[in-house]
Order: sequence, then C-alpha cells, then structure tokens
Amino acid sequence: MALVVQKYGGSSVANAERVKRVAERIVEAKKNGDDVVVVVSAMGDTTDELLDQASQITADPPGRELDMLLTAGERISMALLAIAISTHGYEARSFTGSQAGVITTSSHGKARIIDVTPGRLRDALDDGSIVIVAGFQGVSQDTKDVTTLGRGGSDTTAVAVAAALRADVCEIYTDVDGVFTADPRIVPNAKRLETITYEEMLELAASGAKVLMLRCVEYARRYGIPVHVRSSYSQLPGTIVAGSMEDLTVEQAIITGVAHDRSEGKITVSGVPDRPGEAAQIFRVLADAEVNIDMIVQNVSTEAKLTDISFTLPVSDGPTAIAALERVKHTVGYTGVSFDQHIGKVSLVGAGMRSHPGVSAKFFGALADAGVNLELISTSEIRISVVCRDTDVDLAVRAVHDAFDLGSDAAEAVVYGGTGR
Amino acid sequence: MALVVQKYGGSSVANAERVKRVAERIVEAKKNGDDVVVVVSAMGDTTDELLDQASQITADPPGRELDMLLTAGERISMALLAIAISTHGYEARSFTGSQAGVITTSSHGKARIIDVTPGRLRDALDDGSIVIVAGFQGVSQDTKDVTTLGRGGSDTTAVAVAAALRADVCEIYTDVDGVFTADPRIVPNAKRLETITYEEMLELAASGAKVLMLRCVEYARRYGIPVHVRSSYSQLPGTIVAGSMEDLTVEQAIITGVAHDRSEGKITVSGVPDRPGEAAQIFRVLADAEVNIDMIVQNVSTEAKLTDISFTLPVSDGPTAIAALERVKHTVGYTGVSFDQHIGKVSLVGAGMRSHPGVSAKFFGALADAGVNLELISTSEIRISVVCRDTDVDLAVRAVHDAFDLGSDAAEAVVYGGTGR
Repeated sequence: MALVVQKYGGSSVANAERVKRVAERIVEAKKNGDDVVVVVSAMGDTTDELLDQASQITADPPGRELDMLLTAGERISMALLAIAISTHGYEARSFTGSQAGVITTSSHGKARIIDVTPGRLRDALDDGSIVIVAGFQGVSQDTKDVTTLGRGGSDTTAVAVAAALRADVCEIYTDVDGVFTADPRIVPNAKRLETITYEEMLELAASGAKVLMLRCVEYARRYGIPVHVRSSYSQLPGTIVAGSMEDLTVEQAIITGVAHDRSEGKITVSGVPDRPGEAAQIFRVLADAEVNIDMIVQNVSTEAKLTDISFTLPVSDGPTAIAALERVKHTVGYTGVSFDQHIGKVSLVGAGMRSHPGVSAKFFGALADAGVNLELISTSEIRISVVCRDTDVDLAVRAVHDAFDLGSDAAEAVVYGGTGR
Repeated sequence: MALVVQKYGGSSVANAERVKRVAERIVEAKKNGDDVVVVVSAMGDTTDELLDQASQITADPPGRELDMLLTAGERISMALLAIAISTHGYEARSFTGSQAGVITTSSHGKARIIDVTPGRLRDALDDGSIVIVAGFQGVSQDTKDVTTLGRGGSDTTAVAVAAALRADVCEIYTDVDGVFTADPRIVPNAKRLETITYEEMLELAASGAKVLMLRCVEYARRYGIPVHVRSSYSQLPGTIVAGSMEDLTVEQAIITGVAHDRSEGKITVSGVPDRPGEAAQIFRVLADAEVNIDMIVQNVSTEAKLTDISFTLPVSDGPTAIAALERVKHTVGYTGVSFDQHIGKVSLVGAGMRSHPGVSAKFFGALADAGVNLELISTSEIRISVVCRDTDVDLAVRAVHDAFDLGSDAAEAVVYGGTGR
C-alpha cells in the first residue's frame, strides 16, 4: 500500500462535470489500495473573478485581506470535490491550508512554505478517509493570518505535503501529457520525456516551461520526492521527475529539451558611468523594490567611459523597476532608461552538455541559419539561453529542436488548451 | 467610547457599490470614537449559488463538506468589506468564525454556538483595528471542523460576539427601518416600534416576523445585550430590543403587533386510537427525525374511540415527517396522514394582554367579522395565534391590526424589497 499525493489544477476542476471526473480518478486510486491525499486549486477562473471583485473596490487592496478573499477559491473547489467523492461511497475530508498545517512566511500573496505539520491529515488517513487539501494557501507562522503562495503555489503545496507525509510519489495532474522536449504547440513532433532529473527540470522551469513551477521542483529535489507529471484527461504514462545528474548513465541523451518564455521584458539603462559600484547601486535599488532580475548583460565601455546595462525581468515587474530606477537617476548619473516588452527567451537544457563540447556551437549555428538575431546570452552548467525578438521565438525553438534531433517520428502530444496553474 | 457590534445582512453587501456604502457607515462609527466590530453575511445570492453548485453534483452532500463550501461566502464578503474600509485609511482585519473563536456544536448546517473566545478580536481592537467577523459560521468544539449555524445565523453570531466582548450595543442592519406593528407590505400604516422587550420580540420572531431570528433574540435576552434594529439604507432611528416585561409601565401599549407566517404546513394524522401513549409515540418519532413541531391540536374522540391529531411544522420538514410517520403506521395503528401546505399563521403579541382581559374576544371578533375561518388556535401568556388558509392571511392581519388600532396616521415604513437574512 502506497501513500500517493495527487494535485489537480484549476482547469481539471473547472466545472461540476470535471469535478466528478476527477473524483472518479481519485476513487480509482483508493480502490487500488493506496492512501490518497489530493491537493486542489481553485476552479477555473475563480481566482480571476475574485480579483476582479476586489478591483471594483480599489486597485490597491491590503495583502492580508486579498489573501482572505482569494483563499475562498480553493475552499469551494475542495468542498465540491469531497462532495463528489462521497457519491462513490468513500469518505473525503477537505482541509484548508491552515487546517492542513501548511505554515508559511507572512509575506501575503507570495508566502513561502516554512513547514507542514500534517497531524490532522494523518489522523484522517488513519480513519480511512481520502484527504483533500487546499492548494496555494497556508497560515503565517507569526501572525496566524491566512496567506497565499502566489500563482502556481498549489504544485508546491502538493510536494510539501508529500514530503511531510513521506509519500511515495507526488502526482501532478495537468492539461498536458507530461514534460516534452519543446512546447508541442510550437513543435508538433516534440517528444514526451519518460524521466527527467530534478536539475534539468529546474532549468526548464526557470527557462519558461510552465508544466511545473520552479519552487515546486526545488522543494521536491530537497526532500527527494518523485514528481509524476500526468494528464488529468488521459491515462498516458506522463513524465517522472526524479534522480540526480550524478545517477545519469552515459547512454542518457545529451540534451533534454528546448524551453521558451515570452513573459519577460528587457530594461536597458544607458550612459552609466563606468565606475566601480554603479552597477551594484542599480541592482541594490531593484532588489529593495523586490524586482526579480533574470539575465544581466553589461556592454563594454565607450571612449567616454560610459556603459549600458541591460537586464530581463518579468514584464509585470517593469513599472516597479522603472520607478525604482528613476529614484536613483541623479545619484547613479545614468542618461536614460528604456523598457522593451517585445522580447522572448529561448533556452536549451541538458545534463549531458557538461561533458559534450560543441553543443554551444551547434545551438548558435542553428539560430544563425534560421536568421534569428540574438540580443542577450546567458549560460549555466546545463543550460544556454538567448534573448531574441518575441516574434522570432517559434522559429528559434523549432530550429534548435531540429538541430539537436529531439523530435519523435510521429506527433505524440495532445494539447488540451490552457497552461494550467 | 463605546464598543459597538454592527451586523450587515447579505442584501446590504450584495455588490461592490453596497459594500462601499456599508464601509462608509462603519468608518463613520469609528470616527465617532467607538470601537467597531462588524459581523457580515455572504453577499446577496452567494449562498444560493454555492448550494446550486453542490446540487449539480449530488442532492445529498455530506454536512461537513457542505459547511466547508458555504463558509466561502462570508469569506468573500468580509474580505471585500475590509478592503473597502482600507480605502478610507482605516485598518480592518477580517476573521473567520474559527479565527474569531466562535465555538459551536458539531451539528453541521444547524450548529449552535456554545461559546465565543474572542482573544484575537480583542487584540485587533486593542491595535486600533476595525474588526470584521464572518457571520453564520463557527468551529465545532469536538472535531475542530468548520460549521454553519443555519440561515439567519449571522444575527446570532453578532449577538454572541457582542456578549463575549461585553459590547454596549449590537446593531442589526437590515432592509427594513425597524420592528413594525405588522408587515408594512400588508399593512401600509403599520407603525415602527421605538422599543420592544425581549419577550415580545421572542414571540414575534417565533410567530414569523423575519426582522430578527428567534435564536438571536434568545441569546440577547440571556446576556442582556441591547439589540438595535436599523436600516442599512437610511439614518432612521430603528427599534431597540431591550428590557424585560417586568420593567414595563402601565402606560405601555397593551398590544405590540401582529405577525404572520406562511412558511408552515399542517399535517393531520387521522383515525388515531384514543389510548394513552399514542400521541406520545407519534411525537417521539417526529422528534427523532428532528422535525420541528409548532402548534398541536388533538380533536375530541369519536364514538369509535378514534381521534385526529393535527400539527404545524416548517413546510420543508414535511417530507421527513411524513416518512417518519409511515414507519410507525402499523405500531400506532392510525388510518391516514394528510399534508396541507396552504396554511398561514396570524399571531397577536403584546405584553399587556396578560393583565387585560378581553383581548382574545376582540381578536376573534375581528377575524370573524372579516370572514376568516380558523383551523387551529394556540396561545401563550403574551400571544394568541391562529391558523387559517394562506389566502386569508393578508385579510386577517389587516383586520386584527385595525381592530387594535395599531397603525400610525401616516404610512411610515419604506419597504426596500427582500426579507434579509
């Protein structure tokens, strides 16, 4: 008998019909003799609808109350799911983040899980119940207030609950059939990966692959919880995220896949005096404003001892970053700031590239042959990323995917629409 | 500086505009220097919409999960209200029933408040915050599960919180201007009562007056909390429920008002053997089925030593009662059961009727003159109730109201629609 944690996203429980179908799937696992814990997101558009209600009152709601509002979403979906399970003659008990012992920081809207104390979940499992836990939410350690983890937090809840209960596996049900060598909507013959290491998945997630959130993979890696990514609409085998790069055999593929990201923008600060500490001052003020910086490039200095600094960041952080930079314009003494929202990022990820020279050459060759102009480049041990025009992203992804021969013979992926949460 | 508990019903916070208006009213009280605790119901039709979602899955949801579902309603309204208050520069903190320390029995859907431990509310007040509490919900003492108090429970929450915090007054904001001598929709010149004793209000509530729920008045009486019923749409003075009949002066009006109730049905069990214990057996089985019986009449026995027993009950309890009676048909040996959903109840309430003979005569005379046929009669020390056809209710209310000269010279009441919760 295994202990299985299953996570269903908002699109999997978007309406009564889907809730019933998910309930059947859960009951099936229970019938197989497993103990089942289910983590569920808010139904479909509920979160957006609640945000809309708040925005009818003010554009700037207090974080504590916004979290109180948003957590109504999972409360509804988890109760309906428990009700649907009950129609099969099985008992299901739903628990809020607070009841489930999901202890977080007090940073409303983007709290981080500190610990999970699953006493009530364990008791319910011992009673033979199927356990349902609200994703995306917790209770702050300091203030005992309700918190949310931010979008995508339900995946992290699932892995954290799995770790606390020492579950055998954490199954993430989503609207794709697993992790692919590229987005099947761009590359029709993209291949499903049977397994992928935590490190590779981390790089893919950081590079824009939406199938799993970065924090969730980090958590799974830290506690060694195998994560099984599967479709909630099919019985296909999906992808297992587990194991470390050190365990990889030489037969393993060199390249894992190609990821892309259209959610970032690029800010260029021009005419920055080329003195020690200027760049530090710029990134200090951005950090204080809680802006998440991704890639950074500093150009070589001009004859006038001035330089340009470019960096990428989530488009939504753009206005905050610009405002923060304006505040230090005179102390830094730069001449201008520009914000470019029309960039895209394309990344190649693969644990094998560490020991295989020539990967970079082939990657840049493929992009050059496709006529893609590169604006920024950054690399890690197992990843190469470039920034290009957003209109070139599809072209670049296909060119790289073809160059490394990552596709399968037949189109395998079915895209169900939506990107999950 | 007073401590004021204000309660707003679902229609008072039905949309963003109304939430903003209620927020202004709350901020006004805070500006007056009072400490303010607000109890709020779910917005408008939210509860019905949630019930509808559950009914799309099953007609028979488990109580624990239904309560989990329904409590999302107040979570939304209280968070939005706190957000609206924040736009005025005041801090408001919302608390679920569980966070507010509303401890209840574990009877899902109709839990009763056992105690309120308002430590977190007191702390928030001490910090200068306006406190918002979710009405209608609590946490069970035994299982720590979320419970609901049943419809109208928000009034009881307000009074219970007021008692626990030793508030100076509990203001119930509703969609009528106060307690009237009759329903102004039936009697246009019905008069608003400035004050009314707990006992009279209890009898009115038990007789169908919807302005306050019975349990709420019982709670207020037990703890001596003055309840101020006011309109959330006007600045009119409303009605204060306080004081006991013993405090009434002789100048006090003899009659308080006329109440009516169309929510009950009548069950008649016919051909019951007239032996000791038969009636007891019937009402035992109904009590076991948790059917709420109101009025009971047993006819005199026929020559065949058979009798008929009639009783009234909420129409919604009808099917349960019929099923329970069918189970004991053979042991009791009655011949038939009929269920009449087309009855109405009209009641005259007044503390003064104890010491004024002739009230009954005038009451029955007025009904006879109006041609209203009476089916059942019951009385208490300060109330006379009759059951008639539901189509005769308006006629009966007007006749009695006129006979006791309860009206004011000019129509005073404004009816805003809806009946509140």
